[in-house]
Amino acid sequence: SQNVPITVASGDGIGPEIMDATLRVIKAAGARIDIEEIEVGEKVYLRGISAGIEPSAWESLSRTKVFLKAPITTPQGGGYKSLNVAVRTAFSLYANVRPCVAYHPFVDTKHPGMDVVIVRENEEDLYSGIEYQQTPNMMESLKLISRPGSERIIRYAFEYARSNNRKKVTCFMKDNIMKQSDGLFHKVFDEIAAEYPDIENEAWIVDIGAAKLADTPNAFDVVVMPNLYGDILSDVAAQIAGSVGLAGSANIGEGCAMFEAIHGSAPRRAGQNLANPSGLLLGAVLMLVHINQPEVATAVHNAWLRTLEDGIHTYDIYADGVSKQKVGTREFADA
Amino acid sequence: SQNVPITVASGDGIGPEIMDATLRVIKAAGARIDIEEIEVGEKVYLRGISAGIEPSAWESLSRTKVFLKAPITTPQGGGYKSLNVAVRTAFSLYANVRPCVAYHPFVDTKHPGMDVVIVRENEEDLYSGIEYQQTPNMMESLKLISRPGSERIIRYAFEYARSNNRKKVTCFMKDNIMKQSDGLFHKVFDEIAAEYPDIENEAWIVDIGAAKLADTPNAFDVVVMPNLYGDILSDVAAQIAGSVGLAGSANIGEGCAMFEAIHGSAPRRAGQNLANPSGLLLGAVLMLVHINQPEVATAVHNAWLRTLEDGIHTYDIYADGVSKQKVGTREFADA
Ligand SMILES: CC(C)[C@H](C(=O)O)[C@@H](O)C(=O)O
Ligand SMILES: CC(C)[C@H](C(=O)O)[C@@H](O)C(=O)O
Repeated sequence: SQNVPITVASGDGIGPEIMDATLRVIKAAGARIDIEEIEVGEKVYLRGISAGIEPSAWESLSRTKVFLKAPITTPQGGGYKSLNVAVRTAFSLYANVRPCVAYHPFVDTKHPGMDVVIVRENEEDLYSGIEYQQTPNMMESLKLISRPGSERIIRYAFEYARSNNRKKVTCFMKDNIMKQSDGLFHKVFDEIAAEYPDIENEAWIVDIGAAKLADTPNAFDVVVMPNLYGDILSDVAAQIAGSVGLAGSANIGEGCAMFEAIHGSAPRRAGQNLANPSGLLLGAVLMLVHINQPEVATAVHNAWLRTLEDGIHTYDIYADGVSKQKVGTREFADA
Repeated sequence: SQNVPITVASGDGIGPEIMDATLRVIKAAGARIDIEEIEVGEKVYLRGISAGIEPSAWESLSRTKVFLKAPITTPQGGGYKSLNVAVRTAFSLYANVRPCVAYHPFVDTKHPGMDVVIVRENEEDLYSGIEYQQTPNMMESLKLISRPGSERIIRYAFEYARSNNRKKVTCFMKDNIMKQSDGLFHKVFDEIAAEYPDIENEAWIVDIGAAKLADTPNAFDVVVMPNLYGDILSDVAAQIAGSVGLAGSANIGEGCAMFEAIHGSAPRRAGQNLANPSGLLLGAVLMLVHINQPEVATAVHNAWLRTLEDGIHTYDIYADGVSKQKVGTREFADA
């Protein structure tokens, strides 16, 4: 079958190293892809280009509609528009799917058996980027929640649960304070949940829901929530499962998708063959499923699991008693 | 010395039981207080009174300026204004202080030694309650962050650190997205931190900060943040320290203060002599310090610790191997 064109950006900091590792692994596993490389991130920002991405790079994304993106660095100082948010918005990537899984005993965790998927709304909420300076001393940011936006992310969560054999969808929101915005999200959740009688549903106020997630993640399965809660709580969930360094993320829209690690570009670790490529590699696994090469996805995922099981790991993940070989980025990819 | 007048509300659900237990304990320890009882909560809401609090109750609060409040139930259905937020706003209780402490081995925790104080801004942010229905399908909530509001909560956090012998103040915010509002909070943090060279300071983007807090709370000491992050992350921190049921909270303003448990009214547990009074009792300990009866506060706190150490506990807190006697609310207070 034919190769699928994908757009790839190696990003900043540890980005190039983990992208190299990721591409080597998926190619070795037989991924049928044609790569268009684009440059995004710090250097592009510093050339004065909005959101750190050139018009030619936008064209590549519009053509391939599949984007594998390494972490980038936003330059210090104000005024830089987030690349992530720009791409999510431009292609209406409304669903951000973040599986947070424990790999006990190969990666230390206090929550063995954890297997939670955060489905984060990815376009609305305080990410609208609309802010006003009301007076010299008063800043205002707009939180926007729409019915269509809520409907499609919540329906996505239930469809995801159904097609991935998951039993429950939980909604987090704060409608005792944000009666209109989070109230709408909660209302839509109840409406759509009623269409899926085969799937359990429950709604929690985000404060106590987050507490329970951090303490007893095994009580959750698929959790759907507005953008900002999802941003914070997917980092929490990934970290307590083992490490934010192990979580990949899919940003899904109608015709387009972006895949990434959830961690940052860790400039201080760059260029030392130290970084863990697992987050981006698991992002690539999600991509391979998306471009309809599930057998390659499975091969990569199994090889990765087997490497961990063999006790081969990068500096950042600990597994007392299992570790046999602490290796660099390249050697981890080789294994 | 003279008795201090305080206002007390027994609230709903388990409220009356834990308030009874709390008042018995602090009186037995010699608290010099004169109690004015007010009724707030569900029944008052259902009489159609805004925010669930009568004018006469407001008068009591204005007189005593010290409020010990049990959890309340807000009736189901829209339109009820939060009592907590109403009191916080009316008396400008800008600082919400929530110590989250592990009581290992007497209460099970995955984080022994945890001792984090969340200092939550308590008046601004999305708690402004300002919301608009822009179109039938689009809801908008305002997040407001002011310079004076940020200055006073951040200064409070550093003063708290100094007078409680704490070494570090950490700021959580998300200024890569909310460049104006959270940007202002971050900027003010840096300015005020510079005035306290004796205290370490650091700032984290709230997503990765929250992940680290949930995974490695011992890396934190005092953490200051805007209202909504503080709402969510104080529940997370209290829960992973042992239980949200063990955390008391002080809402501090210039001339007035409210003390409470951070948990809810748990209607399903009500009237069964089951509830754990510890959260409200520790709220009362904070109150006793506030009304300048620190020796009574210490006596209550020590008696409480000693009871846990003796293996006496309510149904909700587990301590494998330490538990000697699972008791009810009344018996716990007696002990
Ligand atoms: C880099 C940042 C803008 C982004 C976000 O807040 O969404 C990141 O934290 C993420 O979760 O992908
Ligand atoms: C009851 C609710 C309005 C309140 C809040 O959100 O502040 C509570 O969760 C708290 O933390 O005290």
